[in-house]
Amino acid sequence: MSITQNSKDWLCLQRIVRFGDTDAAGVIHFHHLFRWCHEAWEESLDQYGLQAIEIFPSSVDMQSQFSTALPIVHCEADFLSPIRIGDKLQLTLLPRKIDLNSFQIEYIFKLKQKKVAIALVRHRAIDPKTRHLCGLSTCIDRWLEASTLNRGISPL
Amino acid sequence: MSITQNSKDWLCLQRIVRFGDTDAAGVIHFHHLFRWCHEAWEESLDQYGLQAIEIFPSSVDMQSQFSTALPIVHCEADFLSPIRIGDKLQLTLLPRKIDLNSFQIEYIFKLKQKKVAIALVRHRAIDPKTRHLCGLSTCIDRWLEASTLNRGISPL
Amino acid sequence: MSITQNSKDWLCLQRIVRFGDTDAAGVIHFHHLFRWCHEAWEESLDQYGLQAIEIFPSSVDMQSQFSTALPIVHCEADFLSPIRIGDKLQLTLLPRKIDLNSFQIEYIFKLKQKKVAIALVRHRAIDPKTRHLCGLSTCIDRWLEASTLNRGISPL
Amino acid sequence: MSITQNSKDWLCLQRIVRFGDTDAAGVIHFHHLFRWCHEAWEESLDQYGLQAIEIFPSSVDMQSQFSTALPIVHCEADFLSPIRIGDKLQLTLLPRKIDLNSFQIEYIFKLKQKKVAIALVRHRAIDPKTRHLCGLSTCIDRWLEASTLNRGISPL
Repeated sequence: MSITQNSKDWLCLQRIVRFGDTDAAGVIHFHHLFRWCHEAWEESLDQYGLQAIEIFPSSVDMQSQFSTALPIVHCEADFLSPIRIGDKLQLTLLPRKIDLNSFQIEYIFKLKQKKVAIALVRHRAIDPKTRHLCGLSTCIDRWLEASTLNRGISPL
Repeated sequence: MSITQNSKDWLCLQRIVRFGDTDAAGVIHFHHLFRWCHEAWEESLDQYGLQAIEIFPSSVDMQSQFSTALPIVHCEADFLSPIRIGDKLQLTLLPRKIDLNSFQIEYIFKLKQKKVAIALVRHRAIDPKTRHLCGLSTCIDRWLEASTLNRGISPL
Repeated sequence: MSITQNSKDWLCLQRIVRFGDTDAAGVIHFHHLFRWCHEAWEESLDQYGLQAIEIFPSSVDMQSQFSTALPIVHCEADFLSPIRIGDKLQLTLLPRKIDLNSFQIEYIFKLKQKKVAIALVRHRAIDPKTRHLCGLSTCIDRWLEASTLNRGISPL
Repeated sequence: MSITQNSKDWLCLQRIVRFGDTDAAGVIHFHHLFRWCHEAWEESLDQYGLQAIEIFPSSVDMQSQFSTALPIVHCEADFLSPIRIGDKLQLTLLPRKIDLNSFQIEYIFKLKQKKVAIALVRHRAIDPKTRHLCGLSTCIDRWLEASTLNRGISPL
């Protein structure tokens, strides 16, 4: 993986597994992984310098200027090793623009350099009122470009 | 609506505990109880004959005719016995109007006639645009009246 | 068990979308779909006649006889249409045995005969103590057989 | 552990509200507040220097040395102002020992110095096998003492 630690810190995050993430089998209950992905994406946008209010609809915005929603159209995950409470997971985001209207993010979860889970989430840009496809907003486009710059062909 | 006011079936529901409700201690993770309460309230309104779309804001309504939101201003719960996966809980709702703008629901969870948890949730009516207090809607008022009719001193 | 094999009612469930399933965009927040899948699977096992306690680990069992866990190794979902509060979804489960140690369930969510989402969840049987692969338990095998009997080429 | 007892940084945390915490009314869906409380408590223990594995049961520990569980017996919350996506909340924990077997934590959520919510969570120590009351573990006792030292009359 060619990402250097200096440049793109906003794509390398940490997640500590909490008690409420587990189930009675003593490992994480699977769907929380997708919650972690979405929260990590939001944290990544934060750290890159984008405000949640610019990206996500809220009741305030909805009545006025908000012009793009980014619903998820596909997601998937593979669980490779058990994930337990207290585990300090390293999380790498690999965003990629698919076309003018959509992008995806691959999420790689590692525990002490060992992959424990991977996930993929695909978003599409729509007008929240009509729900018709629309172009990605400038700020998402900028974040995608900055995120993929110099990555080359991803070895992952 | 064919439900008679005497039976009040819409206030007596069942909830089966699912695997994802538990944590690594093998019993329910506490905050799911509040999710159950809210879902039970919605189910109660359904069974009484009210449509979710009349009661809860959605992105569609928000832009038009929707006039009352019912945010929760207080909630509390007591956990009396461990609740485990597969437990078939009987759930009784005891709604009560507090004043023109607010009401509360007490939730009693029993397992085989034994109380295992109780919860209380208080709602206030506001205008979703201004967030100022407003009166309860007619349909909520009607549900509250029907729910408390002839209850007298609560036997619970 | 009184359910006949032809009806397979235990594979056709209903799910009503609740307020807490939505996010500020006014539609379901994506990962709740996987919670619905797991809960539907548990409901399906219930209706078929299996006890949760036979299938899922709990702190009680873990110390004694419990011998198989069924962790999820892969899951994915496609979101085809917006899903909103109050929507009464028809949910069809299509289980399939993969090999001696694993099976998958496809979940098809319809609103008024229109597919709104599909999901796929793959489980593997392991010994919860060693986490080594093991054979599917007799009761899961029986449920899989009953579920796929006479299905032929899936019409969905 | 290098944290001095005066600073007590481990009791002053931050929480950023994420999209999945909201519902279709555009503000947080109430029960997530309790998830935040529990996660903040775990983070506080982390920062104080305690390992999750020492405090919380897991399937691994349960079969062996794990000797105390800390189930929640009571919780409550007041919601004072709407909480929205992107809000950067300051969170203060006020732990207090109640008796030999139990303690509580008050959680105060502020947005730009204004209280937006408060919560209270009460835990009791039990033996996870028998579920009988037992004394608080040494490490929890130590954390409680350090947390309340020199607090005097709470200024909050």
